[in-house]
Formats: sequence, C-alpha cells, structure tokens
Amino acid sequence: MNSEPEPKSPAFSTGIQKNFEDQLFESAASGNVADLKVYLKGAVNVDVKNDHGWTALMFAARTGQVDVIKALLEAGCDVTTMNSTGQTAMDIALFWNQKECARILQHNAKINPDGSLWNYFSLNPLNRCADKRKDKTWISETMQKSTTKYILFSELKPFVTKCKEKNKSWKYTLCQVDVNDVKSYSENICIFLGVMTKNKNSPDISNDQALFALDVTGVDEKIFTDKYEDSLFLTPYPGALQLEPSVAGIFAEARSMLAWHDRYSFCPTCGSSTTVDEGGFKRVCDNKECRSHNGVHNTCHPRADPSVIMLVVSPDGKQCILGRKKTFPAKMLSCLAGFMEPGETIEDTCHRETEEETGVIVEKIEYHSSQPWPFPASLMLGCIAYATTTKIKDLVDEDELEYVKWFTRPEVVQMMTHQHPQGFFIPPKQAIAHQIIKTWIHRSANL
Amino acid sequence: MNSEPEPKSPAFSTGIQKNFEDQLFESAASGNVADLKVYLKGAVNVDVKNDHGWTALMFAARTGQVDVIKALLEAGCDVTTMNSTGQTAMDIALFWNQKECARILQHNAKINPDGSLWNYFSLNPLNRCADKRKDKTWISETMQKSTTKYILFSELKPFVTKCKEKNKSWKYTLCQVDVNDVKSYSENICIFLGVMTKNKNSPDISNDQALFALDVTGVDEKIFTDKYEDSLFLTPYPGALQLEPSVAGIFAEARSMLAWHDRYSFCPTCGSSTTVDEGGFKRVCDNKECRSHNGVHNTCHPRADPSVIMLVVSPDGKQCILGRKKTFPAKMLSCLAGFMEPGETIEDTCHRETEEETGVIVEKIEYHSSQPWPFPASLMLGCIAYATTTKIKDLVDEDELEYVKWFTRPEVVQMMTHQHPQGFFIPPKQAIAHQIIKTWIHRSANL
Ligand SMILES: [Zn+2]
Ligand SMILES: [Zn+2]
Repeated sequence: MNSEPEPKSPAFSTGIQKNFEDQLFESAASGNVADLKVYLKGAVNVDVKNDHGWTALMFAARTGQVDVIKALLEAGCDVTTMNSTGQTAMDIALFWNQKECARILQHNAKINPDGSLWNYFSLNPLNRCADKRKDKTWISETMQKSTTKYILFSELKPFVTKCKEKNKSWKYTLCQVDVNDVKSYSENICIFLGVMTKNKNSPDISNDQALFALDVTGVDEKIFTDKYEDSLFLTPYPGALQLEPSVAGIFAEARSMLAWHDRYSFCPTCGSSTTVDEGGFKRVCDNKECRSHNGVHNTCHPRADPSVIMLVVSPDGKQCILGRKKTFPAKMLSCLAGFMEPGETIEDTCHRETEEETGVIVEKIEYHSSQPWPFPASLMLGCIAYATTTKIKDLVDEDELEYVKWFTRPEVVQMMTHQHPQGFFIPPKQAIAHQIIKTWIHRSANL
Repeated sequence: MNSEPEPKSPAFSTGIQKNFEDQLFESAASGNVADLKVYLKGAVNVDVKNDHGWTALMFAARTGQVDVIKALLEAGCDVTTMNSTGQTAMDIALFWNQKECARILQHNAKINPDGSLWNYFSLNPLNRCADKRKDKTWISETMQKSTTKYILFSELKPFVTKCKEKNKSWKYTLCQVDVNDVKSYSENICIFLGVMTKNKNSPDISNDQALFALDVTGVDEKIFTDKYEDSLFLTPYPGALQLEPSVAGIFAEARSMLAWHDRYSFCPTCGSSTTVDEGGFKRVCDNKECRSHNGVHNTCHPRADPSVIMLVVSPDGKQCILGRKKTFPAKMLSCLAGFMEPGETIEDTCHRETEEETGVIVEKIEYHSSQPWPFPASLMLGCIAYATTTKIKDLVDEDELEYVKWFTRPEVVQMMTHQHPQGFFIPPKQAIAHQIIKTWIHRSANL
C-alpha cells in the first residue's frame, strides 16, 4: 500500500482496483477510520462509486459513522454527488435517521455562507460599495491604484485563463489584469464592480482590492492573449458555465452591466446620446431639455429582467412537466420559464406561462431561490408550481416549445444522472432549473 | 329590536348602544346564534370593537363557536381586522387551538384564489392572452367589438368613477368606457390588457369581454368627465390606493405599460424612432439597419424593475428595523428597500441595501411574497431578513434615509393600529411592507 499511484477516476473499475474499492466501502460502513485512510492514501479515489452509484460517504451516512464522514470530508470528497436513484449522502443520513451525520453533511453541502442554495451565478464575493460610485475622485484614484485589477471583455466575451490543475472540475478563471496593462484604454467603458472585502464587519475598505470591468471591444485581442499565459477571450455561452464558481458571480455582474451599455447608448425618452456616470451604473442624457432629468422613471439605470422558471408538479406529486425549446442542445429538457411582464406577480407569471405553454392550470406556487443569468441580464426566480389539472394541450407555437410532457420521478432521476434510455438529460447544476428539479427529487425520495 | 336603524361605524359607543354591543360579544362567545342575528339585524355593526379592539368574530374564535363564525361571515364581517395587540381572529383561534374555527377563518382570509397573500396590486383578474398579441386581425377586430371596454389614462392619471355606496371602504373604480366613445382616438397608444375570463378552464375566449388601456393625454378631459357620471382623472399616487381591489391589478398592468411607452419612444440602441406592435407589448425600431433586429437583448420589451423590500429582524427576534425617507408622509415608517442591480440575487440585494443603509449585517433571508408597484413599473419582492449584528451606523445620506431605528414588537403593533404615542404609523395594507410587518407581528404573537 506504499506505492501511491495516481488517484483513479471514479468509473469502470476491475480486478484488484475493484477489490480495494470494496474494502473502502466496507471500512466506511463499519467505521474503520484507520483502514479507510490507508485506502484513500493508496489507489482509491475518494468519490469512487459502486454499481448503484453509492460512494464511501453514502455508506458511512447509511450506518451513522461520524468519524468516517469527517475523514472523507478532510480528504476532499464531494458531498453533492448522487447515487443512481438521485440521493445524496445527506438524503441517506436523513432517511436512516443518522442525525449527527445529516447535520455535518448539511453544513458542508452549503458553500454559500448565508446558508442559501448553491446557485452558480449567485456566489459574488464582492462588496459593491454602491455609495462610492458618486465619488468621482475616489473612483478615479482607485482606478489608478497598483492593487486594483481589471477584468476584460471583448464583444461581451470574458478574458479568461485556463485552470492549471488537470483534475479540476472547472476549466477557466477570469484573468485579473494589472492596471499598467490597461492604461491606454481610459476612454473605454469601465464598470466599478466592487472590492474584495477582507473583513466583512469592518466599514474600512481602503486596503481592499478593487475590481473593474473594462470593455476592450475593437482592441486587438492578441495584445492581451500574448501577455497572459494560457489566456483567451471565451465564448460566453456555454463557456462561462466552466468558470470557477468563485468568479461566476463576478462574471454575472460584469457581463450584464456591459450588455446594458452595449445596447443602451441612446436616451430612450428623446433619442439623444448619453454619458456614462456613477462608476458605470448610470447613463445620463446629453440633452439638457430632456424629461429624463425630471420625475420618477428608470431610463438612466441598468435593467434586470425578472423571469420565472418553474417546475410544474402533478396533483398526485408523482410527476413533473419538462419541455424543450428548439434552441436547447439535443436531448436536453428543462423547466418551463418566461419573462415577467409589468403588473405581474411571480404567481401570475407562473400561472400565465404554464397555461400558455401547456394548458395546465397551477394553483399553489412555492418560491425556491433566485440567480442572475447574464445572457443578457435576467433575474431567474425559481419556483415549484402545483398543478390542479393534467391535460397538456396541443403545442401552439413549436418555435417557442417543440416538446413538453409529464415525466415520473424515476425517469427524471435517470435524466439527472445521465442514464435515461432515450438519452434525455436536464441542464447542468450551474442552471437554476437543475437545483429546482433536484429539490423536488429529494423531497419525494423513497430509499 | 325591530326599528332597524342605520348600521353604526365601529368606533366610540356609549350608553344603550354599548349595551347592545356587549350583548353581541356575549352571544358570540357563548355560541348563541339566534340572539347574535337579532343584534346584527338591529343597531350593531358586525365589525364593532370593544376597548381592546376585540370583535364578535374574535370572541367566537376564542371559544370555538363555529356556527357564530359562519353567521358573522355571512353578515360580511372583516376577517382581517386586528385587535389592539395586533392579532386577527385567526391568530386567536390558532392560539386557543380552535382548529375548525382557524380552518374556516384561514379559508376566508384569502381573497386570492391561489391561496397566496392578499397583496393589493396582485389581484389582476384578467387573462392576458399573450398569444393573441401577434394576431393583428384578432386585435383590431376585438378593438371594435361592442362588448369591448376601454380604460383611459391622461398623463398617466386613470379615469375613474366614485363608488356610489357611502359605507364602502374603497372610494373609486376604473371607469369602463364604451368603444363608441373612443373611436376618434385610433392613433393613440392602446394596450391589449386581456379578457375577463368566465370559465378559467376553457380555452375559448370568444365570448369574454376584452379590455384595452387607451392613452388620451392631450385630449380635453371634459369630453369624458361630462359623459360619465361622477368621473374624474385621478392623481395616481396615493389616489390609486383607493381603487376597489378588484380593479387594482388591472390598474397596475395598464399604468406600468403606459409609463413605459411614455419614456421609451426612441430605440436605445441607435436613437431612432420606434413603432408600437403586439398589442402594445413591443416597440420596434424604425431603422432597418439597427442591431435591435438581431441577437438576444431586451430593448424592444417593457421593463419590470425588481426591487427588494425587507423587514430586518434582530438576532433575538424581538425587534425589527423601520426607517423613513424624506419623501414619506410625516410620521410614516416602513421597511428598508432598494432596487436590484444586474448580477444580484434577492439575497444579495437584501445584504447590500441593509448594510448600505444601516451597517447591519443580515444572514438568512426568507422570501415572503411579491406585488407589482406601478410607480412606474417596479416588482416588489418582499422578504424577512434575519440580522446577526444590531449596531446601526450613523446615517450617511439623509436624502436617502432620514431616520432608521430598531423597534420592539409592541411599538410596531401600536404603529399598525394607529395608537403609537408619538403618532408613528406604517404604510396601509395596500403596501407590501404592511403585509410583511403583519406576518412578523403574527408570528411573534403572544396572546
Ligand atoms: Zn433624453
Ligand atoms: Zn434602433
């Protein structure tokens, strides 16, 4: 056991390898921490699965082995992984009433410090310091500070570097460019994104690193890609879903702001040109006579478009509606969704979109979570909607929705775990649709 | 008891009147339905309160008198009224474990058919029939139909008539104007709001009454006020809060749509003029070369601006933060609130706004409900936010917030029931702030 070979990937094990894995599971289930650590140090990947998709963590959760769970967490195991019926280790711990295990797993399953859900674009670590935006001196001094960093976009494509470690789940990170490398672009659109706050409870931000988003559209991309190793301007969708989660929220803020500037150069009230103000968060009409200088309105401020995305659940709770738009990748199914209109509540939009797209009537609506979706600037409001009817009408507009159907829980688990016989699958975990579907699957778990 | 005088208003009773009222309460508490009906038929208002703000409904709820509750509901009692410590009859029934009473009261407290909260602008009865908007023939035929009605706005002021019954809680309703009275304004901006659906589960809308919103800005208002009895163009805020709840949601849809047209005549991408399309739900750039004809963007569609409004609750749960802006009516306090920015989640905005305005840090955020706020086109997302710190910083920007403080539950109850010694009060029930505060008060009820 001292040879220490490369960790194996968690798939297709045979012979002696399989034997080690079985012993890992056995030591996890029986609470033998010493043996477990030996297997982990040796040839076995901590997240390896058996034929039913069970990991060591799940075996430990099943039998209540607190010390094993702690050792597996130390070894960097993935607490969110699911077995082939769609349960995580925490689900298993809850079902078998292993309360202390469930508590530890629940604590570790939450990356987001406020205990809310793991929504990919929702993890923005920046303090936006909105009160600084009107302070032109502070903004221009901060733009020059040697510690300040810039993230770049060309035609709304983010400037990224490839992650070095091969085994990483995430492919790219935002390239943080030095102030010296952007000095020539002081006339370009530049957004003050916020500061990396070191001490959350201290109002003093003078030593914190500030971050700006700079639009370098039109500049030769090679100027930057030659300077920064392994860098590129990334096609945002679906490329941005491969960003490290720690920068996904920063990307969401930066790209939705730049998308606004890209499309809103002119005053919608009078058609005049506009000037950027307040660290990029305002555009002021250049026409002094314009009504946009008076009254309560929204034309000077960036927009965020609220959109409802809902998993419609059948009256018996056993099925849900999934559908696909023509623009989706082949075989991908997802929740119904639609933009909110002026004068609507979240519930109104749920009712209207479900009825328009399927003819199904929903009554009770339960809010799940929210996440920004920066393509270009949506706010996704995730819901679970309980239907009172089941008949799906003939599709009216196949350009809108080309396929929509009720699916049972086992089928949806197959889609989630990429085991569906027809190859159907649901969006990846970076999409809020995935998180809503996962919540429903877990709620109706039946171990 | 046969004299049947006018019902009295529920305040300041003396002498014989007070005696009848005490007997009403007594019959309610003891379950004497026959006597109760006699008192109601006679001189006593069904919602009359004793010195502690208790109604007959509350006495019946306290002692579990199901038949009395049914009789009071039949007599049109207000189930949402509160006693002087802020409890409704339902709270009292729940506290004293009168389950059947609580069930009946809960059922009746909900006007909204989907069982969600009573938010004033959230009660839009129209089916928007969004799929009809692209059908120009259908739209123009429907505009001419004799059953079709129009609601008018002049400079964003709604055309209303005064409610006839004197005792009504609501002062105005939207005036529904006949097609013959608007024939001269076919060039004006006109929004297809939807149809009054008679059968919710039938897709056939051909016999339903359609409703349009027509902008008559610039037309002599007397043309309409002379024609319709007791009519006027109403200053929208706070006038619109006096509209009958059954039309408040229609007003919200119509006014936020017309406010968009009022400010978005020009294409923000190229500055050209635009043309109204899709029943008023789209504005298309007149410049054929414009980028707005390509790609994924939002410039052609109306905006709805998501805004978070939150009641911040202290770590011990006993206090909440209320504050006032300079623009509020004198002595009015409310929840903190702020617009969502691109790239934010609901939780992010809660954190940011609370920290900016008070320095207090909130962690767990609980979504409460949503309602549109058509001044001009906000979507209010109501939350309860749990603080982990309590120190309120010195106010930075008094133009933004001139006063902000922690208040105890009894003080907030005084504000809600207009009994605060300093005269402070909270917004009326039409505002979502009221509903959020009410939820918190009821949750921490201590009968
Ligand atoms: Zn202008
Ligand atoms: Zn244009």
